[in-house]
Amino acid sequence: MTAYDPDNIFAKILRNEIPSETVYEDDTTRVIMDIMPRATGHALVIPKAPSRNILDIEPDSLASTIAIVQKVARAAKEAFAADGITVQQFSEGAGGQMVFHTHFHVLPRHEGVALKPHSGQVAPAEEVAAAASKLRAALND
Amino acid sequence: MTAYDPDNIFAKILRNEIPSETVYEDDTTRVIMDIMPRATGHALVIPKAPSRNILDIEPDSLASTIAIVQKVARAAKEAFAADGITVQQFSEGAGGQMVFHTHFHVLPRHEGVALKPHSGQVAPAEEVAAAASKLRAALND
Repeated sequence: MTAYDPDNIFAKILRNEIPSETVYEDDTTRVIMDIMPRATGHALVIPKAPSRNILDIEPDSLASTIAIVQKVARAAKEAFAADGITVQQFSEGAGGQMVFHTHFHVLPRHEGVALKPHSGQVAPAEEVAAAASKLRAALND
Repeated sequence: MTAYDPDNIFAKILRNEIPSETVYEDDTTRVIMDIMPRATGHALVIPKAPSRNILDIEPDSLASTIAIVQKVARAAKEAFAADGITVQQFSEGAGGQMVFHTHFHVLPRHEGVALKPHSGQVAPAEEVAAAASKLRAALND
């Protein structure tokens, strides 16, 4: 497997070198909004410790990350009045990974609404900010 | 959320009331092959403790499950010479869930090969058994 690249975009976000809509942060984990959301409220749960994906992440880092995935899933269900939640984790390009720092996707889902395809289009900032506000509020309930 | 139904198909598999291609088992977790695989080697990581999905699973059960997801992801990459791994967890029907006992999908992926659609077709038993043998061998390495 390719080595971890400390200049990937999530590493830069974690170092606050580039901005993000952060909705939750603790010692081990940060949660940001996906700027190319496949559903309203699409969030990314990112461990702070460097790892490429599920194939090399340290067990402790994986355990703290999945605990926050659950927290975000519950909050997202409430914040977006979702009927369900889809969690995805992609490892390596063939697995669907685009940024090579471990992350879990948490996608609020509604009956009869398919996920949007990966368009490569960045959503309007105000749309992402509005979703972030709702999720942040539910996470701090 | 609807209550947990102890007669769901995975609960029956865990009680050995119906057969499965089990490739790994410990005190907390069982890993079986998906009989409707969306990729060769498609496995399901199932916590033994009853829960419906990520919205209600106990944190300890979730932690032990994700540790085995990692173990299976690594073994599947080796067993199927995969280029990557896709992990999915679906909660509620709108989230993609079909059996209402918590489970994680682990899908070996190859460059340029899309996941097969959910066909509802059960794969030939010998195909599933062959994949099970490979994954079992890698898990016991």
